[in-house]
Amino acid sequence: MKIAVDAMGGDHAPAAVVAGVIKARDQFTDLEFLLFGQVEQIQPLVKDSTRIKILPATEVISMNDEPVQAVRRKKDSSLVLAAKAVKEGQAEALFSCGNTGALLAAGLLIVGRIKGITRPGLLSTLPMIGQQNGAFNLLDSGANAESKPEHLYQYALLGKYYAQTVRGIANPRIGLLNNGTEPHKGSKVTQEAYQLLKAEPEINFVGNVEANAVLKNAADVIVADGFLGNTLLKSIEGTASAIMHLLKETIMAGGFSSKAGALLLKPTFKELKSKMNQAKYGGAVLLGVKAPVVKAHGASDAETVYYTLAQIEQMLKENMIPDFVNYFSKTTLKKD
Amino acid sequence: MKIAVDAMGGDHAPAAVVAGVIKARDQFTDLEFLLFGQVEQIQPLVKDSTRIKILPATEVISMNDEPVQAVRRKKDSSLVLAAKAVKEGQAEALFSCGNTGALLAAGLLIVGRIKGITRPGLLSTLPMIGQQNGAFNLLDSGANAESKPEHLYQYALLGKYYAQTVRGIANPRIGLLNNGTEPHKGSKVTQEAYQLLKAEPEINFVGNVEANAVLKNAADVIVADGFLGNTLLKSIEGTASAIMHLLKETIMAGGFSSKAGALLLKPTFKELKSKMNQAKYGGAVLLGVKAPVVKAHGASDAETVYYTLAQIEQMLKENMIPDFVNYFSKTTLKKD
Repeated sequence: MKIAVDAMGGDHAPAAVVAGVIKARDQFTDLEFLLFGQVEQIQPLVKDSTRIKILPATEVISMNDEPVQAVRRKKDSSLVLAAKAVKEGQAEALFSCGNTGALLAAGLLIVGRIKGITRPGLLSTLPMIGQQNGAFNLLDSGANAESKPEHLYQYALLGKYYAQTVRGIANPRIGLLNNGTEPHKGSKVTQEAYQLLKAEPEINFVGNVEANAVLKNAADVIVADGFLGNTLLKSIEGTASAIMHLLKETIMAGGFSSKAGALLLKPTFKELKSKMNQAKYGGAVLLGVKAPVVKAHGASDAETVYYTLAQIEQMLKENMIPDFVNYFSKTTLKKD
Repeated sequence: MKIAVDAMGGDHAPAAVVAGVIKARDQFTDLEFLLFGQVEQIQPLVKDSTRIKILPATEVISMNDEPVQAVRRKKDSSLVLAAKAVKEGQAEALFSCGNTGALLAAGLLIVGRIKGITRPGLLSTLPMIGQQNGAFNLLDSGANAESKPEHLYQYALLGKYYAQTVRGIANPRIGLLNNGTEPHKGSKVTQEAYQLLKAEPEINFVGNVEANAVLKNAADVIVADGFLGNTLLKSIEGTASAIMHLLKETIMAGGFSSKAGALLLKPTFKELKSKMNQAKYGGAVLLGVKAPVVKAHGASDAETVYYTLAQIEQMLKENMIPDFVNYFSKTTLKKD
């Protein structure tokens, strides 16, 4: 199984990307890698080139590039060439830590949609609190700013198969993000989506879920339009980081006993940080395109890259995409 | 200045409500109170009836009542009678810890909109992190599920005058909640709202603000549609509570030194909790109706009720509503 890697994307590229690839190569003997990027930078980082092939790309898409334009114009960029390798069957998955919008555009424009899927969505994995290694999937976490009820319905199906395939949950609970738990709550879109989800026997629908319940084991998969999902994601991240900051600040402002207490609690804080760390859950996946297209955080280190490649290995090994293609080609779905 | 109080609303009514009223009465000599509710329950709680009048109401709107129906049918409820007292000029503000939807309905249907305001919105006050007593206002935090650009524009003006009047901020920074900082980001609604806000010289517009920046002093007032605003509010609350829970759990699972550390950090945790406590910032205010209509949390204790009544005192003393009426009667605003 071959993964096409944009070796130049991300704040610590190519070093962190290549280090993560080497770790994944050593761990998963079924994986091969095509690294696209500037050969003179990548070559020295790869001492043992077993199952790693370096392919030249003269251009790089930066974080500030306008996504769609960059994908259309920078034809010799590491991202575009990696996406083309997937399109042409030289690789089965696409990985990048670079510009999210550009990766989404490359996924849609080059890799292409699965037939029957009207609008691919971005799936993120977030930790749950109070559950050992608990996590939930959120989609769409930001691919599209607006969604119709039919898109939310498709997200539920995509999320279901992802949770089954990658996370091994037999019958994932699907919840609809809403501003109240009653069926009539929310906008026209969520009200209609509620009815579609409720009527679908394939979906283990647990109803509306409010934003303050998502971290507390309300559902395995939370479905939302991309604007709302993105707000939820960023708000959880921002609040967690703000509270850790406030905790540190309050400790520093306290007296000796406060600092001594903090010293004793160092392992606790470390564990807390590790529990909130999203890296081990892998990257964000664009679901609904013809291959796994996966984005790790721009600030990713080698470990995060490794975890994300492990997540891709799972999707490939379990045949997630062929299963999607099969399912959606058979189903008659509501269209745009 | 007279405040009409729904003495029967909330989990700890009427005891907590009456205790908060008594504290506010003792503190603010310019306030008088009309307490609506079951006299035989309220009377024994009021030993000194200076500036407190108890008025009988035979019905109570519960948390489970359907809001609009309840307001229409329970004509002798403490909430409806309190709202009518405001409408008829016997009181200048309405306060309740009860059913939020019913209070909003009473505000809209009984107290009534200010001329020129197309859709009143709910304003909440949330703490900022890393700022001494820092806070920001969010509106709409849940009155309406959908908004047009014109509504967001009006929220910005309402939020501006609130922040000036109640929080004493001379030139409040107004931000638009969005899923990216660039002007073209978001939905059609936020894109259009961005242009309206940018073009308005009355508004100190700081542009789009992402959900992970709101706690970090991005703006004094954050404008959003009610669905998004409600999601943000609940997500911040839920994440904060989940992290405190996780911290406690991790400490309890740790060894002796972990527990000793927690003991030493007790004052720190207490301060942290106090900083995150929203009660001292007062309740949620329905802005755009003809009087302050203010909701405190259902679980409010006497202290929260007191803080919320202090917030109302400020709005009345500073003539916020007459200023609104004056401003919006003069302005030609885009209409629905």
